[in-house]
Amino acid sequence: MNAAQESSTTIARAALSRLFEPSDAVGLALVAAAGPRDALRIATGGLKAAGDIKEEIQELLAPGEGRGNLLDRALERWAPRRPDLAPERDLATLARFGGRLLTPEAEDWPGALEDLQLAAPVCLWVRGSVDVPPLQRMVALVGSRDSTNYGASVTAEMASGLAMKGFTVLSGGAYGIDAQAHRAALGTSGTAQPPTIAVMACGVDRYYPAGNEELLRTIARDGLVMSEVPPGSSPTRWRFLARNRLIAALGAVTVVVEARWRSGALNTAHHAAGLGRPVGAVPGSVYSANSAGCHRLLRGGSAICVTDASEVAELAGPLGTHPETDVCVPSSDHDGLAVQDILLLDALPLRMYSSIDKLATVAGLGFRDVLAGLARLELAGLALRGPEGWRRAPKS
Amino acid sequence: MNAAQESSTTIARAALSRLFEPSDAVGLALVAAAGPRDALRIATGGLKAAGDIKEEIQELLAPGEGRGNLLDRALERWAPRRPDLAPERDLATLARFGGRLLTPEAEDWPGALEDLQLAAPVCLWVRGSVDVPPLQRMVALVGSRDSTNYGASVTAEMASGLAMKGFTVLSGGAYGIDAQAHRAALGTSGTAQPPTIAVMACGVDRYYPAGNEELLRTIARDGLVMSEVPPGSSPTRWRFLARNRLIAALGAVTVVVEARWRSGALNTAHHAAGLGRPVGAVPGSVYSANSAGCHRLLRGGSAICVTDASEVAELAGPLGTHPETDVCVPSSDHDGLAVQDILLLDALPLRMYSSIDKLATVAGLGFRDVLAGLARLELAGLALRGPEGWRRAPKS
Repeated sequence: MNAAQESSTTIARAALSRLFEPSDAVGLALVAAAGPRDALRIATGGLKAAGDIKEEIQELLAPGEGRGNLLDRALERWAPRRPDLAPERDLATLARFGGRLLTPEAEDWPGALEDLQLAAPVCLWVRGSVDVPPLQRMVALVGSRDSTNYGASVTAEMASGLAMKGFTVLSGGAYGIDAQAHRAALGTSGTAQPPTIAVMACGVDRYYPAGNEELLRTIARDGLVMSEVPPGSSPTRWRFLARNRLIAALGAVTVVVEARWRSGALNTAHHAAGLGRPVGAVPGSVYSANSAGCHRLLRGGSAICVTDASEVAELAGPLGTHPETDVCVPSSDHDGLAVQDILLLDALPLRMYSSIDKLATVAGLGFRDVLAGLARLELAGLALRGPEGWRRAPKS
Repeated sequence: MNAAQESSTTIARAALSRLFEPSDAVGLALVAAAGPRDALRIATGGLKAAGDIKEEIQELLAPGEGRGNLLDRALERWAPRRPDLAPERDLATLARFGGRLLTPEAEDWPGALEDLQLAAPVCLWVRGSVDVPPLQRMVALVGSRDSTNYGASVTAEMASGLAMKGFTVLSGGAYGIDAQAHRAALGTSGTAQPPTIAVMACGVDRYYPAGNEELLRTIARDGLVMSEVPPGSSPTRWRFLARNRLIAALGAVTVVVEARWRSGALNTAHHAAGLGRPVGAVPGSVYSANSAGCHRLLRGGSAICVTDASEVAELAGPLGTHPETDVCVPSSDHDGLAVQDILLLDALPLRMYSSIDKLATVAGLGFRDVLAGLARLELAGLALRGPEGWRRAPKS
């Protein structure tokens, strides 16, 4: 691809991202079948789709069904937006904000998005100068807007701990858990570069919500603010839902810190699980409605319990690795002892000395076993030999 | 079996329970191979074990290894306790306390214990008059002795909720979570009969720990206090560990309400998981050391997150049933809407009316789709038709 082609491809993708809503299946199939430049010409009526393009779209979206009107209905859907297309103007707007457009054709395209397959975005509008880190270095922290003090402090500790370990903290730029995650990552002088990325449901020229303007401005300067919708786009419900899939795809792990029983954060978790990415959920009080969504995820088996940054980092490790299943062992000074030695330890008096005979009776062990066991317990510093027999060694 | 044989079997088991420590594998294999009466005669030197008995023990414990000295070493181990055997006296002591001995030969033997296979107890010393309920009606609530206020109140609500649903609450009679579980079950006037059962590590004639004397007395009166060790036995470490397997085997579910990272309650959970019984763990603050053990179980995948009595009851349902995996959906008024209708709903202004043309552009939908979608949204009470077009219906 020469420079002119590259440029026209970029412009085509910029235009398509305004024409299509996020996750427009027919639109994305059209791009897959015809390439972005012809897709734009077809979508805007400048080129009639050949039969094989229609067939390929049909095959991509509904294999074997054989009804070929998917594209025609989509063309009707896209028609009202044609007059609004001005991709060069949009790209100029982005450049004014010091941003750039990421496209699948370029080397800096986050490969992790390809896991979304046909639902991968047409392009990404990005504000900020650093590169998007690879999947293995990104963790998404998400949660409710109406977070509690508990949620806020867990988020802050987790984000800060992750940033110190070199992870970029992804979130959605919203109030509550999102804002706390971004803030804590920005405030941590670690090795993570960028410390944080906000994936927005609106255009990157807008600071939404207004109360986070200062925060988003800082993220655009020190990290990255990105969106699949072009400048000027407002954050709609659909774009919020679709945006969640990008957060889920970009992070090696998605952690839900605090969420109500029904919460958009669970939607992000669901996307992550669907992509085979590990999902973490932070436990909390059973009396907190703000933890009910996390407990729901844990109970349903779609999330793993995480309580700190290290446990999250462990999930982010080699992809898909789960923490080792614990063997639950009880604690304290009989750890690692064989059954007979535990019996013997139980039989040893704490203060007085006991004879071998007495120990055999109390422990229910034979004399040889008592003698052998006492030697082992003495070595372990648990039994004390005295003139009148044996007793428990005092705890050190 | 006639009455005399039955009585001598009972007496033999009573004696064996003093001769053997809980889970004495060779002893239990001897009983399995020779029956309780001959097992007692062999164990006390009154009968020489025939070759086939020795072989069967060997086969039960270490199949294919072919070294036949297991029984000889066990005989040496049991010898020191022979002089202490007085099963009739023990049974008389139990009768004085209004108790009885449960044995595998009798109809009232809890069948759930057979899941322990070779580790099933020789007999159960029981105080109290009611029958042991079937597995499906029993739930174990266990946890740390040093419980927090949080743990205490979750335990109380859970135990009380379970008792109201007709479940018998099993626990270990210790301080903390155990005591709270017993107390709440006793205080609930439900259909559970008995409301609670304490499975002890010491003889049922002893009230241990002393601070729970009043509570254990009440349990013995209104519920059941049981143990596999005979009257007079003291609670040793080994007996505590072995006792945990009985709690795990008797309950359809074992719930760990609060436990430190290393806690005996995890040992009970481990036994339950080993038996294929569902294990529940109650989540709590990540800052509470008393919830660290529960989070460890959740993280390791050996427990399911439970937050109230209903979720525990669900686990106790048909054995081994797991709660359905949730599909995580976001909340509110776009629930159940198709993508196109969400797009359209997003496009509808809150206060002003919008034309079909405008809606098509904003939503990125064709005119036919907008018309059809508006009809659906109007039906759903989400869109309002006016003289100048359409707007969002006010929330009811």
